[in-house]
Amino acid sequence: MAVGAPSRFPLASVHGVRLGTARAGIRKPGRRDLVLMELAAGSRVAARFTRNAFCAAPVTVARQHLAAAPGVRYLLVNTGNANAGTGERGLHDARACCAALGELAGVSPQAVLPFSTGVIGEPLPAERVIAGLPQALSALDAAGWEEAAEGIMTTDTRPKGASRSVRIGGIEVTISGIAKGAGMIRPDMATMLAFLATDASVEPALLDALLGGAVDVSFNAITVDGDTSTNDACVLVATGAAGAEPIVSLQDPPARAFAAALQEVCVELAQAIVRDAEGATKFVTVAVGGGNDVAECRRVAYTVAESPLVKTALFASDPNWGRILAAVGRAGVVGLDVERVAIDLDEVAIVRNGARDPAYTEADGQRVMAREEIRIAIDLARGDAAATVWTSDLSHDYVRINAEYRT
Amino acid sequence: MAVGAPSRFPLASVHGVRLGTARAGIRKPGRRDLVLMELAAGSRVAARFTRNAFCAAPVTVARQHLAAAPGVRYLLVNTGNANAGTGERGLHDARACCAALGELAGVSPQAVLPFSTGVIGEPLPAERVIAGLPQALSALDAAGWEEAAEGIMTTDTRPKGASRSVRIGGIEVTISGIAKGAGMIRPDMATMLAFLATDASVEPALLDALLGGAVDVSFNAITVDGDTSTNDACVLVATGAAGAEPIVSLQDPPARAFAAALQEVCVELAQAIVRDAEGATKFVTVAVGGGNDVAECRRVAYTVAESPLVKTALFASDPNWGRILAAVGRAGVVGLDVERVAIDLDEVAIVRNGARDPAYTEADGQRVMAREEIRIAIDLARGDAAATVWTSDLSHDYVRINAEYRT
Repeated sequence: MAVGAPSRFPLASVHGVRLGTARAGIRKPGRRDLVLMELAAGSRVAARFTRNAFCAAPVTVARQHLAAAPGVRYLLVNTGNANAGTGERGLHDARACCAALGELAGVSPQAVLPFSTGVIGEPLPAERVIAGLPQALSALDAAGWEEAAEGIMTTDTRPKGASRSVRIGGIEVTISGIAKGAGMIRPDMATMLAFLATDASVEPALLDALLGGAVDVSFNAITVDGDTSTNDACVLVATGAAGAEPIVSLQDPPARAFAAALQEVCVELAQAIVRDAEGATKFVTVAVGGGNDVAECRRVAYTVAESPLVKTALFASDPNWGRILAAVGRAGVVGLDVERVAIDLDEVAIVRNGARDPAYTEADGQRVMAREEIRIAIDLARGDAAATVWTSDLSHDYVRINAEYRT
Repeated sequence: MAVGAPSRFPLASVHGVRLGTARAGIRKPGRRDLVLMELAAGSRVAARFTRNAFCAAPVTVARQHLAAAPGVRYLLVNTGNANAGTGERGLHDARACCAALGELAGVSPQAVLPFSTGVIGEPLPAERVIAGLPQALSALDAAGWEEAAEGIMTTDTRPKGASRSVRIGGIEVTISGIAKGAGMIRPDMATMLAFLATDASVEPALLDALLGGAVDVSFNAITVDGDTSTNDACVLVATGAAGAEPIVSLQDPPARAFAAALQEVCVELAQAIVRDAEGATKFVTVAVGGGNDVAECRRVAYTVAESPLVKTALFASDPNWGRILAAVGRAGVVGLDVERVAIDLDEVAIVRNGARDPAYTEADGQRVMAREEIRIAIDLARGDAAATVWTSDLSHDYVRINAEYRT
């Protein structure tokens, strides 16, 4: 099950980036479970990682390698095992994979960033990852985005990708990205796994700022189940290989066009994760406005988006708006004047002045709730701040998928 | 579905308290949906109500009547309709019910505290409540606790009650209580609905302090779905009718015995709510120790207890402890040293020093997870504070019950 149209493939290639995959049998035989992304020498890399205190071994190693000098040449991704909660052995395994790839490709181990996703708490079968590397290296191809998007899937039902192009000084630069994730989704600084690349040339500090800005309104604005993963990572590569002039300041019009395009790619990927959320039958936008600050708007939006009662009502297409109201009320907004709060479902006014709109009818509510895509708009009526969060419903299949995950 | 043994009825009667019920047809015909609790003149009443900003009309009215002078003589409870999100009309309806009962019983309207539970956002059919009052009044009986416990049920599958007796100066005093609730359970200061009465004599300020202390470690330590209700209320009545000397200070040994018995009643009722949680197949204790303060222990305990991924793993009897670890990691404990964290499932050591215990086997984990009652013990290893939370699992039936709630 998934909501809305799937991502459009093929993606536009990015000069300086090649991708390759392998079937390494990490958890189950025959699955495409190993992905390599090769970056041209001189590429700049910015990244955001999970804030979960129990971050996975590959997250720790990737952070260390990013901070080291030589420059990143490969992203190495495996599914089927998260290499999280694995202590010292996990760090050793992640480093062993980087070293093996470095040797095969003639780069230093620190030029490799490792990423893992899958079951938490089991040792990584590093030998299978390493055995799969030659196959992935030989498959490297600038047109490999779709296979890579498939290769990073776990409980995802479909690959996720997005592309945009902008012109910088007469030269077209491309931004392409892929992402995975369907459960354990409440990113905190990043999502499960997202890999973005551009052939624009961007100064490192600016690349980091651009990624941070885009992640904030995309991957950091979605939730499936409120469970922040141990392995979240989002990487943005700028190869500079398009030959366009460098982007050095966000004030320039081309830079603003680039930032807007990057944000569009991130939002499209983040929404693709929600559309493919475990068991999802609805794609839901929770838009909160009229807040004193963005933080309280986000708190209200997440409280509504993560309420099991709101989510089961969405699954049932039941306009049980009292559950939305109750979630707003428990979101901890100090001094909220409930008698001014308004709630709309798409074009239907549900709550006005804190109570049911006199003109509201159950038939109107049901008409909207029957839709696959629904917008819940909440007006706190106390300020000018706003925030939007995207989420899915809570269905029988979410329980089935997560009850059977390891079987 | 419910976990463990049901409450033992009949409860011990409380001198000065009579209970009566009626079938008023508030939402569905034939259901016992109206409950009256009559209190002897001079009874003291303490209460805790929801902190949800959208508190229901009866909560507002009950608070006002409690603050007024004359003393409380009746608690009036209806199920089938929460009278929440109903604005001015809701307040008017709640007051009309109090006035009608006052007239029939010869007391002031303010001597009546109203309570409602059920669907949010629909007008209360006050005329049906009022029409049912004579039947409930004629049924008043000191032995009416079990019928009252049935009368306040909504999605509950069984009535919940508990009793304790203690001796004060040679005289036996009794504490009996009933509670309801199975979904929308994450009480904040109180639970869905709990009514406790004692025939001890307790000074008002002390009664309030006793209730607060007991609620903190009972109703405020449970969660089913993280959804704090709009109608939570917990009331403690002290009739003084046992004839024992008044309890005036918590320092006296009888007062301490009384406080302990009250806490036992509250914990038993709170646990009964979790055992009967919507769709529950497990009763789970999350005990967090080694914290810097109680607040961070509670935060960790609630994060684990409300994680959909932990809850579905519990439903599946799957020892997928990585999900527990991930939940601990995202609970926002600043400066947590994950390499010291330990996690146990009952007698089985799962995590030591932040990673899988070397002696752990999947068979051990599965043996524990197959149990109906499971204790998850988490040691943060950084201080002496501790907190315990009780919760249930997330099953297919939770989704079914909440998707079909209004049908």
